[in-house]
Amino acid sequence: MAPLKSWLPIPADSDFSLSNIPFGIIHSKSDADWRPAVAIGDFAFDLKAFAAGNGFAKLKSSSFSDTKELFAAFKRPTLNAFAALGRPTHNAVRTYIQDILVENTKFPELLKDNEKLRETVVIPKHEFKTHIPMQIGDYTDFFAGINHAFNVGTMFRGPANALQPNYTHLPVGYHGRASSVVVSGTPVRRPNGQVLLDPAADPKVPTFGPCRRLDMELELGCFLCTGNTLGEPLRIGEQAEGAIFGYVLMNDWSARDIQTWEYVPLGPFNAKNFATTISPWVVLADALEPFRTSGLPNETQLLPYLTESRQDSFYDIKLEVDLTTPDGSTTTISRVSAKNLLWSFPQMIAHHSVGGCQMNTGDLLGSGTISGTESDALGSLLEMCEGGKKEIMLAGMDVRKFLKDGDEIIIRGVCENEEVGRVGFGECAGRIESAIQL
Amino acid sequence: MAPLKSWLPIPADSDFSLSNIPFGIIHSKSDADWRPAVAIGDFAFDLKAFAAGNGFAKLKSSSFSDTKELFAAFKRPTLNAFAALGRPTHNAVRTYIQDILVENTKFPELLKDNEKLRETVVIPKHEFKTHIPMQIGDYTDFFAGINHAFNVGTMFRGPANALQPNYTHLPVGYHGRASSVVVSGTPVRRPNGQVLLDPAADPKVPTFGPCRRLDMELELGCFLCTGNTLGEPLRIGEQAEGAIFGYVLMNDWSARDIQTWEYVPLGPFNAKNFATTISPWVVLADALEPFRTSGLPNETQLLPYLTESRQDSFYDIKLEVDLTTPDGSTTTISRVSAKNLLWSFPQMIAHHSVGGCQMNTGDLLGSGTISGTESDALGSLLEMCEGGKKEIMLAGMDVRKFLKDGDEIIIRGVCENEEVGRVGFGECAGRIESAIQL
Repeated sequence: MAPLKSWLPIPADSDFSLSNIPFGIIHSKSDADWRPAVAIGDFAFDLKAFAAGNGFAKLKSSSFSDTKELFAAFKRPTLNAFAALGRPTHNAVRTYIQDILVENTKFPELLKDNEKLRETVVIPKHEFKTHIPMQIGDYTDFFAGINHAFNVGTMFRGPANALQPNYTHLPVGYHGRASSVVVSGTPVRRPNGQVLLDPAADPKVPTFGPCRRLDMELELGCFLCTGNTLGEPLRIGEQAEGAIFGYVLMNDWSARDIQTWEYVPLGPFNAKNFATTISPWVVLADALEPFRTSGLPNETQLLPYLTESRQDSFYDIKLEVDLTTPDGSTTTISRVSAKNLLWSFPQMIAHHSVGGCQMNTGDLLGSGTISGTESDALGSLLEMCEGGKKEIMLAGMDVRKFLKDGDEIIIRGVCENEEVGRVGFGECAGRIESAIQL
Repeated sequence: MAPLKSWLPIPADSDFSLSNIPFGIIHSKSDADWRPAVAIGDFAFDLKAFAAGNGFAKLKSSSFSDTKELFAAFKRPTLNAFAALGRPTHNAVRTYIQDILVENTKFPELLKDNEKLRETVVIPKHEFKTHIPMQIGDYTDFFAGINHAFNVGTMFRGPANALQPNYTHLPVGYHGRASSVVVSGTPVRRPNGQVLLDPAADPKVPTFGPCRRLDMELELGCFLCTGNTLGEPLRIGEQAEGAIFGYVLMNDWSARDIQTWEYVPLGPFNAKNFATTISPWVVLADALEPFRTSGLPNETQLLPYLTESRQDSFYDIKLEVDLTTPDGSTTTISRVSAKNLLWSFPQMIAHHSVGGCQMNTGDLLGSGTISGTESDALGSLLEMCEGGKKEIMLAGMDVRKFLKDGDEIIIRGVCENEEVGRVGFGECAGRIESAIQL
């Protein structure tokens, strides 16, 4: 089997091959309404226009008898209504769009040979803009990257006590701030806040000002398509997997100095709630199926509600982090696979809902920071600079410990193999703006 | 000045006097749509029906030139659209309804003498049901009850280290789970989860099962009507106060055994996200103005962004907690004023947004557990039973440490003085259902 080819010109190195078909929200020069689209090569494929132009005429699926709800979902300004239709529908639509775009399509009359519809449906790169893909109900950030947890725990408590006793028994997580999730390209303002400049002083007296230890965190984000009734958990296995819509790249920006002072005893708060950036295109769980792999080993005997029958609920996504300084020079500061997690998303979902917590369409789960074991495979500057002890060497003789104003972080992620080709996420980018004067 | 009297029959001990006029969401026998209403005595005053029947004909306010948006808001299934119109509008509507309902109303033709409209607008108790009043964007729970923080801190670390060094410098809080907020009367299912039965064991191995230390937390909840742009804080004073829509009673149910095992290092998670109950009627900030008072003294020199020019941003709400056991006997287990807080809601809002976090219409802030200093004025069973060391004595020779299946907790809250009369919150009630079998 070789990768699918399209009659549309798709660059060989595009993240958005015909094997991918990720969903997002766009507006364009020709239509100012925010609406669902699919990314294909350098184009956006306008689902609203395609439905309006009768492009779904040949769509047949056992998962829906009529297409009214589907077409209504393609007129909405977020993907929530589409997501809520469930995984069989997402997959039927994805497969159908592949059938429409494949080189030797059985339905050339619908788009390939229909110049008029092509002009409204296939929108070139410079004519559309992407937006936040989902209306996020609740956002939860987990801590499933054990290498990161170990590295950071070591800084605070030494290697023997780096991981808390609960760490290998349950996926530790905390509730994040949904309102602060922004789409790639949104500027990130350096937060002001309370910090403790002299931790040894007695009494401890904080000062106020712009964060001095502004960091990024490399994460994988997971959007839910369906949820549960309050009080009724989603079980590990089919139920939890069936609740997964798809994945995005995530940068959970962190103000380390604010965090150190505020986080005891109730966890991070203002250190995190100023911005979390996600990539705009949701890569469907189905598109990542060929790249399933195992995660990091957990020797702890898990409780049944967390025990998966399969061991491959992780993905070998090659993640990269670029830092571009204000002078324009770029350094790749990290390269690491997304399989560096102790807990899978189905496990996170099973744990999150086991006490009855209601999960909803549009909920966003973060994996926690993904770090490998090598020094060039770390997911945060905090780890790269060893808590501030070491300079991170950049191109152009520049150095960093934490982020300066004008620095841009771009995360990329790609899966690739010979059979399927390239399935990527595009960019998750954010540039630091200076703090406001208070 | 004496309390306002109405031509409607309002019981003298009603929380919903003419001085109150709290807003909520109802549906009724006559109209199945969820819609805004006001509570008055034992009635719901249907705002949608009143607007449709031209009841607002005499409404004049400098805060809005036309009433189109307002009437549209009165057709919505939550109060968000009404809240978003801002405090001057809330107050104009509240005052107008008082003008309509007052004994010697200037506009008797609009409702008092209009029997037909009265029949649709004034709905008796047994003909309507209340619902969750707001679509909650994000829910944040603070920890501003210093007596509670001290009591609980003492159990874990002794009195000398009970409060963390940051406690008097900033209002500590954490992001809660918006999806788990339910309206009074919703059953609360006992959560299952991981607990550590033997904390001394090495290695520590958790077991799974129904929570054994199910607790309540007495809190005041605050709904926001307006917010800020991401990156632009709401300043203490007028900006923060202007963002407050009103207040509800809140019970932040807590699974203490789950919490103890899970909460390090990122804070409470499944211990809290199975349910948080709120009272259905939002008492406007303006209705509480006559009951402003000072909070608990904070001798710490505050940073300017937290320094209020006034010292009376707290309310003397008399809170009561009743526990009714399955046999029907009721004990008032706590009586405490809501002024027992170290931080005011304007301070919480200023802190929450100081790093740029976006606050939105419908956000819910919890005060944290409100405890006094006496043993009959505590806001959680954990404090009443001294961490499990002591039985709480109930009516009918019964005792409790934590909640049993079938127990019901009802929180009430009332302000009262001679000039204004009674301004209360109604009930915040929840009964414990047994855990599901997993």
